[in-house]
Amino acid sequence: MSIPSNIEIARTAKMKRITAVAETLGISEEAVIPYGHTKAKLDLEKLDLKARPDGKLILVTAITPTPAGEGKTTTTIGLNDALNRIGKRSLATLREPSLGPCFGIKGGAAGGGHAQVVPMEDINLHFTGDFHAITSANNLLAALIDNHINWGNALGLDTRRITWRRCLDMNDRALRSIVSSLGGPANGYPREDGFDITVASEVMAILCLASDLKDLERRLAQIVIGKNREGRFVTAGDLNAAGAMAVLLKDAMLPNLVQSLENNPVLIHGGPFANIAHGCNSLIATRTALKLADYVVTEAGFGADLGAEKFFNIKCRKAGLKPDVAVLVATVRALKFHGGMERADLSKVNIEALSKGAANLQRHIGNLRKFGVPVVVAINHFAGDSDGEIAKLIEIAESFGCVAHVCKGWAEGGKGAVSLAEAVVAECDKAAADFKPLYPDHLPLIEKVRVVAREIYGAADIAADVSVRQAFSDLELAGFGRLPVCMAKTQYSFSTDAKLRGAPEGHVVKLREVRLSAGAEFVVVIAGDIMTMPGLPRVPAANGIGLNKDGQIEGLF
Amino acid sequence: MSIPSNIEIARTAKMKRITAVAETLGISEEAVIPYGHTKAKLDLEKLDLKARPDGKLILVTAITPTPAGEGKTTTTIGLNDALNRIGKRSLATLREPSLGPCFGIKGGAAGGGHAQVVPMEDINLHFTGDFHAITSANNLLAALIDNHINWGNALGLDTRRITWRRCLDMNDRALRSIVSSLGGPANGYPREDGFDITVASEVMAILCLASDLKDLERRLAQIVIGKNREGRFVTAGDLNAAGAMAVLLKDAMLPNLVQSLENNPVLIHGGPFANIAHGCNSLIATRTALKLADYVVTEAGFGADLGAEKFFNIKCRKAGLKPDVAVLVATVRALKFHGGMERADLSKVNIEALSKGAANLQRHIGNLRKFGVPVVVAINHFAGDSDGEIAKLIEIAESFGCVAHVCKGWAEGGKGAVSLAEAVVAECDKAAADFKPLYPDHLPLIEKVRVVAREIYGAADIAADVSVRQAFSDLELAGFGRLPVCMAKTQYSFSTDAKLRGAPEGHVVKLREVRLSAGAEFVVVIAGDIMTMPGLPRVPAANGIGLNKDGQIEGLF
Repeated sequence: MSIPSNIEIARTAKMKRITAVAETLGISEEAVIPYGHTKAKLDLEKLDLKARPDGKLILVTAITPTPAGEGKTTTTIGLNDALNRIGKRSLATLREPSLGPCFGIKGGAAGGGHAQVVPMEDINLHFTGDFHAITSANNLLAALIDNHINWGNALGLDTRRITWRRCLDMNDRALRSIVSSLGGPANGYPREDGFDITVASEVMAILCLASDLKDLERRLAQIVIGKNREGRFVTAGDLNAAGAMAVLLKDAMLPNLVQSLENNPVLIHGGPFANIAHGCNSLIATRTALKLADYVVTEAGFGADLGAEKFFNIKCRKAGLKPDVAVLVATVRALKFHGGMERADLSKVNIEALSKGAANLQRHIGNLRKFGVPVVVAINHFAGDSDGEIAKLIEIAESFGCVAHVCKGWAEGGKGAVSLAEAVVAECDKAAADFKPLYPDHLPLIEKVRVVAREIYGAADIAADVSVRQAFSDLELAGFGRLPVCMAKTQYSFSTDAKLRGAPEGHVVKLREVRLSAGAEFVVVIAGDIMTMPGLPRVPAANGIGLNKDGQIEGLF
Repeated sequence: MSIPSNIEIARTAKMKRITAVAETLGISEEAVIPYGHTKAKLDLEKLDLKARPDGKLILVTAITPTPAGEGKTTTTIGLNDALNRIGKRSLATLREPSLGPCFGIKGGAAGGGHAQVVPMEDINLHFTGDFHAITSANNLLAALIDNHINWGNALGLDTRRITWRRCLDMNDRALRSIVSSLGGPANGYPREDGFDITVASEVMAILCLASDLKDLERRLAQIVIGKNREGRFVTAGDLNAAGAMAVLLKDAMLPNLVQSLENNPVLIHGGPFANIAHGCNSLIATRTALKLADYVVTEAGFGADLGAEKFFNIKCRKAGLKPDVAVLVATVRALKFHGGMERADLSKVNIEALSKGAANLQRHIGNLRKFGVPVVVAINHFAGDSDGEIAKLIEIAESFGCVAHVCKGWAEGGKGAVSLAEAVVAECDKAAADFKPLYPDHLPLIEKVRVVAREIYGAADIAADVSVRQAFSDLELAGFGRLPVCMAKTQYSFSTDAKLRGAPEGHVVKLREVRLSAGAEFVVVIAGDIMTMPGLPRVPAANGIGLNKDGQIEGLF
């Protein structure tokens, strides 16, 4: 018996018209801007949601990722389907996947098995064009920078210190580092430059944190694109670029409505990187969802040390969001990996490795509670999991003061996550959450980093060269001291060493570099090798992707 | 009294729902794939048009362009509105405008005044995402090329002879010439590279000439991306790229439906450059329109020496289209410019200059007749035109055996083009057309160029260095000898000297370079400076573009 692929399951979906999906949320056809019959953007002006009360906000996060896979998105969708199944008006909000990686090795990012969002091919490729709009806005700014230099450089830009890079939604290592403007005077002044993948563009982070078009334009104007010859920051506003960029992003600012395989509504909007950005869907989508539904299930990238920390310290802080509960996704296999088992052995029952690896779970539970948010553990079920291991994991979670429920969203859809949904509702009903960010705005930047390293990563301390310390001081002097920090480090460990599994402690987090995202309004602190433009593998997925004789897409996942 | 801008007029439009516009063509809602409420793609499978007869095909082309402006698109839209006004089922098909130039100096490309297509902001910016899809497909192929080289270069690609360039829909001179893959082994092998604007990508030309998805994939596989170390052509098919590229272009292959200010349906689809490509809307749109309407008004880029010649010799030849009539757009001002007046003086009445400049009109009329297509002259009316000049121009056209009618589409919409529409219908009713391409497939490539130069440009001959002659021979040896040629020369003169107005003759057309577009299935012959990546001006339009307080776009045109 062969297990059907995600795309095969997705293709059997009986999708409702998107207007009918919208109707389940009380949205009239007038407020639905269709993109085909099964995708839409929501016309926020016509919705007029301001007066409505907010629903409960549920963050789905995970233990430290492993090669075994955790299934955070699958759990998010399964939980949302389950909440709807038990009669709650629930809405999931997710990040949009990036097109480029689909042609490399990555599978889609629209869930899996029977917990998927559809139409999955569209969602994973061009969708409603949001990322293309971001690419255009990013590259318009880049073109305006070089054009300004070409025509006399009145702002005195130092071409060695331009930090704004071009972008494409494509895995293309050849573009990481280039020299541009070659070929003579007609083509401008040669300089070193490079491309990031679109999800790594600051424009993406800005779109996801802006509260409305006005705030978008304000943030775009704040973007620091480099320095002038006096060493002062030059902004997109100095280049009169923000208005035109906002025009390009006007439609992209509206959240996208799609549906799960069980026809429950899902908002998918924005997809910032989870290392050099904050890694969760747009604020607009989250706010819209809170007005439209009684329960909103959202998701943050990577493990809770990165994704949840940023969700809380960056997004919730700035937007005044108050999460009600965190769902921490764990798997038996991943915890056994954290307990020291090798990947090839993970199918073997091993209670000891599971118990040992649970230290990772424990650390994340403790971390989430530091934000005043109660935790429910979701055990994402894999086919080979033994009953004994599952029982043990539930027992372990209980010993940490958490309820744990098995989630079979992949195999069963919402039906497989009903007990999890009931536990989440029960936790929300307790109203025990008392959200607060981990550090105050006024703390010096380096101290903010120290708090995250100690409290979240379990580090003994941080270490930073003079140049990094100087960069923090410079930013504080320039008025950016009140911004939150956005940590960029490996997602595979609490430490900066991807090989340290479980819950390492006593390590030192070495800070390598500091980057200002003045429009996104955070300071990126880099503690590891951060790749902002992926490459393609030796045999790229693209080689096997094509249209079959019925015009259907084959080989995408 | 201030004259309202195009965007102001467009904003007052009372747009119909796109489903209602489709209904006027007998298209059911099921076959309409909406993109918002006023744009749609047509679901060709659901339309099932095969059995229907074809309507009449009307090509709108123009005299040699001048700085005075001719108004070809305005005439096309006005004529289509007029045909509908006199009770004909008529459908216009146009090219999609490019996003990048909107931020430079160029106005929009959706007509003007009261002869516009709406929603003009959308059409001029992201529209339905077709160009973004083309950008993605183009750049996926580029990434696959460098990835192939990075992982061992099994095909033995000669990195000095890769001709496939990356693209962006942005005016960005800094990207014309770059060195890529810098920064060490992780980023591949450094080589010279560059970006074209998306409309100059061969993928655009392919999309516009492909008859269906299968033909699209076949053509994509044929793309020659460069040579291997033995000097043999390497194709996109050799890199297994065509399937994934076709997947990215799947939706982009469907024609887009919008409406004129008078709510008449217009198909806008594809937009290849008119120099290194063939410069007219997609074959799919034209064929669909011919099935949906009794009259199809379409348009070709630049003057008739380039646009109409390519429309006939490339598009009609390959697709078996049989144009019924050509509408040749002329203006009093432009002909006076051709007659030797300077731009600043064009408002002055000058019958002599008009008569002299009419040599340009005469040449184009004669050229069009060489294809067996009857000609109707459209005099696009400008505010300052004197009645005497108009009368003279009608008289001149008559002396060339053509009826000429004033078209006031800009000022009056369809009402201003009724007599033109009636003349076009009368010409179609005569069924006098007997279309044939200018040269047979079997003629050697260089002889095809000679025929175009002599018969269309009025040249004495062509001239070509050994290298160019060798390039032609190489292509014939490689099996590409039966392709049509696609001439790339200045649009401002019949000669290769942009300053030679009127109807120069006896000149020699010097061929500089030959490029193979194996997927588009034509051979580009370059006889001039061809810019495939525009730059931005000193004060780019972007500086003045933004959203007003109602969220409307300002400053776009």
